Amino acid sequence: MYPLLTGLRIVECASFIAAPSCSLYLQQLGAEVIRVDPIGGGADFKRWPLSKGGDSYYWEGLNKGKKSVAIDLARPEGRQLLTQLITAPGKDGGILVTNLPKEGFLSHERLSKHREDLITVRVMGWGDGDSGFDYTVNAALGVPFVTGSDANGDAPVNHVLPAWDLLSGAYAAFATLAAERNRLRTGRGGEVTVPLSDIAFSALANMGQIAEVMDTGDRPRYGNALYGAFGRDFRTSDGERVMVAAITPKQWSGLVKSLDLVPTIQQIEKDLGVSFARDEGTRFTHRDTLFPIVERAIGALTMDRVRTVFDENAVCWGPYFTLKRAIAEYPRLKPGAPLFDEIDHPSGHRYPAAGAAATFVGMDRERVQRAPHLGEHTDEVLASVLSLSSARIGELHASGLVASAPSN
Amino acid sequence: MYPLLTGLRIVECASFIAAPSCSLYLQQLGAEVIRVDPIGGGADFKRWPLSKGGDSYYWEGLNKGKKSVAIDLARPEGRQLLTQLITAPGKDGGILVTNLPKEGFLSHERLSKHREDLITVRVMGWGDGDSGFDYTVNAALGVPFVTGSDANGDAPVNHVLPAWDLLSGAYAAFATLAAERNRLRTGRGGEVTVPLSDIAFSALANMGQIAEVMDTGDRPRYGNALYGAFGRDFRTSDGERVMVAAITPKQWSGLVKSLDLVPTIQQIEKDLGVSFARDEGTRFTHRDTLFPIVERAIGALTMDRVRTVFDENAVCWGPYFTLKRAIAEYPRLKPGAPLFDEIDHPSGHRYPAAGAAATFVGMDRERVQRAPHLGEHTDEVLASVLSLSSARIGELHASGLVASAPSN
Repeated sequence: MYPLLTGLRIVECASFIAAPSCSLYLQQLGAEVIRVDPIGGGADFKRWPLSKGGDSYYWEGLNKGKKSVAIDLARPEGRQLLTQLITAPGKDGGILVTNLPKEGFLSHERLSKHREDLITVRVMGWGDGDSGFDYTVNAALGVPFVTGSDANGDAPVNHVLPAWDLLSGAYAAFATLAAERNRLRTGRGGEVTVPLSDIAFSALANMGQIAEVMDTGDRPRYGNALYGAFGRDFRTSDGERVMVAAITPKQWSGLVKSLDLVPTIQQIEKDLGVSFARDEGTRFTHRDTLFPIVERAIGALTMDRVRTVFDENAVCWGPYFTLKRAIAEYPRLKPGAPLFDEIDHPSGHRYPAAGAAATFVGMDRERVQRAPHLGEHTDEVLASVLSLSSARIGELHASGLVASAPSN
Repeated sequence: MYPLLTGLRIVECASFIAAPSCSLYLQQLGAEVIRVDPIGGGADFKRWPLSKGGDSYYWEGLNKGKKSVAIDLARPEGRQLLTQLITAPGKDGGILVTNLPKEGFLSHERLSKHREDLITVRVMGWGDGDSGFDYTVNAALGVPFVTGSDANGDAPVNHVLPAWDLLSGAYAAFATLAAERNRLRTGRGGEVTVPLSDIAFSALANMGQIAEVMDTGDRPRYGNALYGAFGRDFRTSDGERVMVAAITPKQWSGLVKSLDLVPTIQQIEKDLGVSFARDEGTRFTHRDTLFPIVERAIGALTMDRVRTVFDENAVCWGPYFTLKRAIAEYPRLKPGAPLFDEIDHPSGHRYPAAGAAATFVGMDRERVQRAPHLGEHTDEVLASVLSLSSARIGELHASGLVASAPSN
């Protein structure tokens, strides 16, 4: 954690990946994040992967460093209490991050009656209000029809990585700070919606894919080949796999030199009347010529040798590892490395937890904080944010409107 | 474009997706972005997809609304001019977004001698300085070994979507505003690094995958099945494909009801001694039992019928479309829809261009601005930011140190 956003107070009322990662990012740069869940946990409280004891590694990963408040949100008094938390005074408060429906009890219109300058950041499925989540948005966009090899025929290949959720989360964190910066200057809050559909469509559009489709139709499947330049997976003589690419002229000449292919490539260029070095697109157009040559060259070398000659020639490449092997082999992933702290989690397990993905050079990274137990900060937050007395908090417990960690 | 960050001035010296999308996002919320390229264009100037005329749809997508300055960066005087642009005075200036090496001529240490409160946001490959890009980082993490079906054996399946580039860009935009907020309060700038490696590893860690791997080893391939709950692609009787999921109890009961499977599922629950409604994980554990049943039920219905019964029962689902079909069928993607404006681009083509992915409710979205021609704003920026006279700008042109659009 970096203490950059110290003082900023976010109330999160959300589940799954996008909205919770938005406020996780804010927490990791110093904001106070109060996550409010129904008593017993929200829809993501038991989301896989689970520990053997049945605790969600997913939940405890996405909610690190947050404060947890548990309220009975099915009752009007519970919703009122949540409204009070969201709209509590304080220049740096009044920010809600949610994925609940626009028209529901967390509607911005309703909430902002209690705090005019409230900022509501709402992650949605479709921008027009239709429901959608990462996998349906990805399906709607055609990504599964261009992923994988021709052997898949016309069958889709889903992503395992929820890329649109993750992107929506980061973009929502950005939008939160933009809205807050504007509020500091103008005094005005407002609602910001971040629909997965718009995140995804605009990302493809920004990379030129809408123009491409309107021009030449849908992109076919190119398997593992990098589109528009040279790139693919290859095998070494000892059975390892490497991803190799050459987008810039320098990367291409480095690759050709590293594999002793200079005369071979020169001959092909002469035969075809092209310059692979000058025009990256020709490396893609003629991939069926180039791939087998590089395949043979890399296939004749051990991984150690590949590493040596590629690194000597500044080739753009990397090994394929499984995640387990990556954790074992990359110094940057080890406990004690800057990005990770090995800490005890609510599941009772001890393992490395990631801090902020960015590094603020020269600032001390504070230790990564574990996720809360559900309701761990109920009493503390009711006292600090709403100034409720112990007696009043006791009444709320007695009526079953709130819960604390041990009672969950 | 929303005028939220009006006044903020960013100098971008970068190429490809991550860093340019960071400043694109900032531009779309109102910042002035000055992109500086070498004369003739940077490494991404001809990146595919290309128009038939050879212009890059990719470049003109990722650089919309930016100002373009072309400088001969190979000469010391050119680098000096760039340094002056980056470090020009102004409370809301002094922000550099780059993907150039930490130790090169855009080192923060060197630049900050000219402006102490400079903020440098640097997208990197690996956090320890090793080179890396989206596809090698993805390979290093094991994602290609869990993507796709068992039929791939031990072969990797690359992503076509550069998810880590996109995520790094959005996160970098967030980190930029966090650093700038801190500078407003403390007067201190600094360097922020955003390594793709750290973005990717922390994202997997945040979703619980490092804990999972340390606990139970690498995740196998589950094909198109959604991990840890119910979800997969299915075919309708008329050959359409749908992605269907049920993570929450409500989504599950809606699905079962919509397909008239209530008694069937009850019998299975009785036989297996589980409650699919109560425990989402059982829907995954018993997917080999559930998938064929749902497959038959959906396979007996036309797409129209599926749409009707699914929407009636609030099922979490969506069709698989190709991108071309998505553009044709989704109102939200059409020219005139809120997210897109149909505009003329530097390639000479007219097509819908995406604006900000977020919607600031009640604020006017200003029209999407096209990308610049390379060097289109050279003279304007040198005059406005550095107060150079026409005579001086003329000299710079004469010496070949800068170039304007028509001369490219």
